[in-house]
Amino acid sequence: MSLSARIEQSLDEAIRHAEGPGAPPLLASALRYSVFPGGHRIRPQLCLAVAMACGDTDPQAANAAAAAIELLHCASLVHDDLPCFDNADLRRGKASVHVEYGAPLAVLSGDALIVLAFETLARGITQNPSRLVTLLSTIASAVGSPNGIVAGQAWESESAVSLTDYQRAKTGALFVAATAAGAAASGADPAIWGVLGAKLGEAYQVADDLRDILCDAEELGKPIGQDAARHRPNAAAQLGIGGAKARLESLVKGAIDSIPVCPGQAELQALIKAQTRAFFPKQLAQAAA
Amino acid sequence: MSLSARIEQSLDEAIRHAEGPGAPPLLASALRYSVFPGGHRIRPQLCLAVAMACGDTDPQAANAAAAAIELLHCASLVHDDLPCFDNADLRRGKASVHVEYGAPLAVLSGDALIVLAFETLARGITQNPSRLVTLLSTIASAVGSPNGIVAGQAWESESAVSLTDYQRAKTGALFVAATAAGAAASGADPAIWGVLGAKLGEAYQVADDLRDILCDAEELGKPIGQDAARHRPNAAAQLGIGGAKARLESLVKGAIDSIPVCPGQAELQALIKAQTRAFFPKQLAQAAA
Repeated sequence: MSLSARIEQSLDEAIRHAEGPGAPPLLASALRYSVFPGGHRIRPQLCLAVAMACGDTDPQAANAAAAAIELLHCASLVHDDLPCFDNADLRRGKASVHVEYGAPLAVLSGDALIVLAFETLARGITQNPSRLVTLLSTIASAVGSPNGIVAGQAWESESAVSLTDYQRAKTGALFVAATAAGAAASGADPAIWGVLGAKLGEAYQVADDLRDILCDAEELGKPIGQDAARHRPNAAAQLGIGGAKARLESLVKGAIDSIPVCPGQAELQALIKAQTRAFFPKQLAQAAA
Repeated sequence: MSLSARIEQSLDEAIRHAEGPGAPPLLASALRYSVFPGGHRIRPQLCLAVAMACGDTDPQAANAAAAAIELLHCASLVHDDLPCFDNADLRRGKASVHVEYGAPLAVLSGDALIVLAFETLARGITQNPSRLVTLLSTIASAVGSPNGIVAGQAWESESAVSLTDYQRAKTGALFVAATAAGAAASGADPAIWGVLGAKLGEAYQVADDLRDILCDAEELGKPIGQDAARHRPNAAAQLGIGGAKARLESLVKGAIDSIPVCPGQAELQALIKAQTRAFFPKQLAQAAA
């Protein structure tokens, strides 16, 4: 089964659980709407790719970890789009959750997706309970306070923040968790594998900053120019487009070079190369290909 | 150490973790504000009391479970008070979190508390990893969709809902998790112990409905008359004050009678009797004492 098929099936199983007997119909509908159809699913792809590179010794655990990470990412998108944050009407090319279902159900959908992520871990990781300890703690620390994506979003409420600290928490943390959790699901050392996620997370953020400046809203599937409008730090604004592009290329190279020796090292290197090409905005993709 | 001391210490350890190096200062401050000073801490008291009645064979796991349950309860209060739900200015006798810190940090505080709850489980339950599987799944299912407190809150967005379904999800689920998790933390069967939580949860909800009608805002520490103002089902409105009081007494008796045979059965019965007296509104406490 392809990585994508494993991810979509695991996410569907998780959402079907949340839609189960007794679920409030509008919440159930909003949960499915928040997760399907997805974006590039970059984080769960990365998680599963690392799990396979490390031998895929517990596929059910790897699927659960990948689904949990994507559910947490979807939760963060739903809450970030709320009127009290970005007030974004558009997400993945359709109306954002609070526009479609109202703010109360958008808040509750985000909450339910966070909980569902951890419940998915508990349901999927039964074969090796000691791996659950590692996976739960790895994934939770990438999402909460002090250094996870929720803390990253909270930096927007502070009067001063460094670009590095902000992006490391808001974007980098979940990429680090994706590679670390993929390794942990297969019984490998999560700490060694975090470096790959950190470099890819920074690369993804630089690419996102470039897209915010270079793309049109239709290509992006969400509003453009949001960083400038919201006075958020943006690498392309700080380094210039040429400087940001050079930084992106250097980070991708560093990521590929960081892959530890493992059974599937060559396959993983090839996959990361292919995946990171999708990071680049169309206008720059030619040069990076 | 008393139950209260164990709970406050475990909650303080959890919050200190979230306040750790790199935390955004306002979020860190809002997290502590959301959890301290607490209310009656009924759910974690119940969780620890059951863990002790079952032999308290892994006190660290019991403390983690109790803290996780209270953190999730606090998260639900912070989000329920938001302008898009109850728009409540007052909670536990002080300004609610969104009034003190603004809606963005209130949303993020709730999110971070949910994540912290699960992270606390991972950090506390290392001695018996197989108990983590049970505890994580027991607690997560009491919070998410289809039947947890988030689903309970989402029923308020539906046009029709039964009083029983609504209250079972919104209040009952976390009480069931409290007794089931207390048992699981000590290696006992969580399913058998859920009955006690279900009865106490329903009793607590009936008492809360009575307080919403009988108390003044100063005694309650939050606005009164909210159920009528928000067209929410209220047992005292449906059954009358006398009927609701009779229902409350019958539920408390049923709860005490449901306690399974265990090493600390008599102590637990005495503790539940004392705790449930605190449920009753002052105007009715004399009759129940």
